[in-house]
Amino acid sequence: MTILEKAKQGKIDPLMEAVAADEGVTAQYIREEVAAGRVVISRKRSGAEGKPIGIGRGLRTKINANIGTSRDRCDVGFELEKLETAVRFGADTVMDLSTGGDLDKIRKQIIEASTVPVGTVPIYQAAVENVNLEKAIVDLPEELLFEVIEKHGEDGVDFITVHCGVTLRAVERIKKEGRILNVVSRGGAFLVEWMLYNQKENPLYEHYDRLLEIAARYDMTLSLGDGLRPGCLADASDRGQFEELIIIGELAQAAKEHGVSVIVEGPGHMPIHQIQANMQLEKEICHGAPFYVLGPLVTDLAPGYDHITSAIGGSIAAAAGADFLCYVTPSEHLALPGLEDVRLGVICSKIAAHVGDIGKGVKGAMEKDARMGERRRELDWEGQLALCIDRETAESIRKKSPPRDPDVCTMCGPYCSIKGVNEFFKKK
Amino acid sequence: MTILEKAKQGKIDPLMEAVAADEGVTAQYIREEVAAGRVVISRKRSGAEGKPIGIGRGLRTKINANIGTSRDRCDVGFELEKLETAVRFGADTVMDLSTGGDLDKIRKQIIEASTVPVGTVPIYQAAVENVNLEKAIVDLPEELLFEVIEKHGEDGVDFITVHCGVTLRAVERIKKEGRILNVVSRGGAFLVEWMLYNQKENPLYEHYDRLLEIAARYDMTLSLGDGLRPGCLADASDRGQFEELIIIGELAQAAKEHGVSVIVEGPGHMPIHQIQANMQLEKEICHGAPFYVLGPLVTDLAPGYDHITSAIGGSIAAAAGADFLCYVTPSEHLALPGLEDVRLGVICSKIAAHVGDIGKGVKGAMEKDARMGERRRELDWEGQLALCIDRETAESIRKKSPPRDPDVCTMCGPYCSIKGVNEFFKKK
Repeated sequence: MTILEKAKQGKIDPLMEAVAADEGVTAQYIREEVAAGRVVISRKRSGAEGKPIGIGRGLRTKINANIGTSRDRCDVGFELEKLETAVRFGADTVMDLSTGGDLDKIRKQIIEASTVPVGTVPIYQAAVENVNLEKAIVDLPEELLFEVIEKHGEDGVDFITVHCGVTLRAVERIKKEGRILNVVSRGGAFLVEWMLYNQKENPLYEHYDRLLEIAARYDMTLSLGDGLRPGCLADASDRGQFEELIIIGELAQAAKEHGVSVIVEGPGHMPIHQIQANMQLEKEICHGAPFYVLGPLVTDLAPGYDHITSAIGGSIAAAAGADFLCYVTPSEHLALPGLEDVRLGVICSKIAAHVGDIGKGVKGAMEKDARMGERRRELDWEGQLALCIDRETAESIRKKSPPRDPDVCTMCGPYCSIKGVNEFFKKK
Repeated sequence: MTILEKAKQGKIDPLMEAVAADEGVTAQYIREEVAAGRVVISRKRSGAEGKPIGIGRGLRTKINANIGTSRDRCDVGFELEKLETAVRFGADTVMDLSTGGDLDKIRKQIIEASTVPVGTVPIYQAAVENVNLEKAIVDLPEELLFEVIEKHGEDGVDFITVHCGVTLRAVERIKKEGRILNVVSRGGAFLVEWMLYNQKENPLYEHYDRLLEIAARYDMTLSLGDGLRPGCLADASDRGQFEELIIIGELAQAAKEHGVSVIVEGPGHMPIHQIQANMQLEKEICHGAPFYVLGPLVTDLAPGYDHITSAIGGSIAAAAGADFLCYVTPSEHLALPGLEDVRLGVICSKIAAHVGDIGKGVKGAMEKDARMGERRRELDWEGQLALCIDRETAESIRKKSPPRDPDVCTMCGPYCSIKGVNEFFKKK
């Protein structure tokens, strides 16, 4: 029985209890939200153990770090280092997006080593294997796609991105309206190429029942990918994007009815003033299914700083209801990320998640910040450092510029405002 | 005659024309907005020449970089390097916040060298000179404060921060409600200490007419400082903050009547969901006076990353109407910024300003992003780099990880989605 089926039958299992304890809510709340499809539980199914995490309504915003080889940079050891870095700095899940080397072996090694749940995008492997056979992506046999999905389930993948909502009709919408950057999702692009070349419907849509059957067997969560997400601000919130979202809403409902947990994936690139409406629409159209967003990146002009443009968009998205943020690194749009990219990507995503938690009123989020305020008032530097999201970085900045008086910093020195007024605000 | 007086009399002067040309609006629009107090013009009054800039309604969001010595790090040459860095990366103005060394000399050197308008906070110098005479800040003679302001006017300072809205009544409000971090504005703290010790009203409030007279004489803009801004999220939007804002609204109106241009300063530290309301309130209470915000920082937990927490808050603030963003560097709360801090602070502020411009619909803002989308579709890397806010950084990331096929990047290599679908979306 899947977690969702148990929840629907009113059963509370140890995963629900663990998530409830972690979040400071009741197990009954988790069961109800899982049953309603508004919370999914992600957990290690194989390899190294790790704690299960809850993603969805009323819970802390979670973050994912993408790792994985590419043809141009293929080194499993390096990817395992990235995994270690991502987890150390606070990634709640990782996705193995490898497209270079022995994909089965790499995936197994990552699952074996990871203490956080692992997700994948099976169509990448199907496409790569096909290309390795010197066949074009448009010649991909449908059967291969389902074989790979089955294999990922067997290996213990916890959630898979499947771009089931990319339909011929949605692609037609995009062509009709016109886009600057047509399709930027890698999996989405494989499918669109295949569909337009063969003039056939998306197999993941056509044979969605088969997908649900595999997902149910392994209790894998389907992360319904937004293959038609906007790839630049100008393309955001167009008719093709919402056509796909409507289909995803229907598929999410069908999955829930079949006992399969679902996450919905979202944009992408988006002007700041459209983010809130997009979050609300997903929640309405998909009946509260957890929303997993990539970004949104709020400008296209800052390559090298997309960890920051996505922290801006991710903060707003999370505050408006997004449940799960996919990190973006400084290398986005430029290169495969390295270790420092992973570190910065995770930290910026954690900042955005926490800012979002404050915005959506997650219990305890504001209180952490209040404690930092108290430590600042007390000029307690050790206390401040202990509360930092990245203590190491804060400490090194302070150490590089040591103040003459140890209770202040070199910005204001003896003119520290906090120190100056403290005696005037002492409680009598 | 001040710029504001000319505008009120229906006169268009060359500064208004220059700003209009720079912003792509009519000189008549600028004149009307200046006359209404909704736009101020900032310009070099002495030293190196530079173009005037407009700050306010309908114009691009501008950014300021703070530089200046402290007692613990006092090196004029280093501050001039920071100035050069700030201007090179796009600061629209700088503020000299020096509190260490020969303040008159440093200020003059900065004004001499700067090609962007220079602002100051005169009370810093008054406080430092007083302390140098081995007197406590609470013993600061009121006269000294006005003498320093006069001197800054003579030297060619373009705008000065004056914390005129810090009244005994507002401080009382804060004490009554209770704060975690009482006063974190340096200038605000000097005044509060002085006021509470001497049990006298703020001289900048009591003798506001004198201040207006000096400002009018040099046509210096008054930047009405928020001396009581919240210093942590928990203190945001409290009654003391709004008591001060109400007074500032009254003072802004009085300044306008006396022909003196005014900017209003704002928070600070603020939960993400309070930013929009705060921007709207300032615009209402201060009759549309340009809003100059420091941050807002949307979490207190990220020392070392406050250039990012302020880019998040600044983006939202600018989209909601803030006109002028003060940069925040990675050293905020930890140390006096260095050169790399200045560079990162300016770039993050520029990102936030541009994101805000998109959000508030500034003409031409979205179009730049659309051009990047087009260059990406065409796999035109040189075109992409040319559009980057920081070309150098983007280029170095790409160069460190060169792809085998020069038209893609090492993230996806041969599986580039853009390249894959391009032929299927060719216009017939």
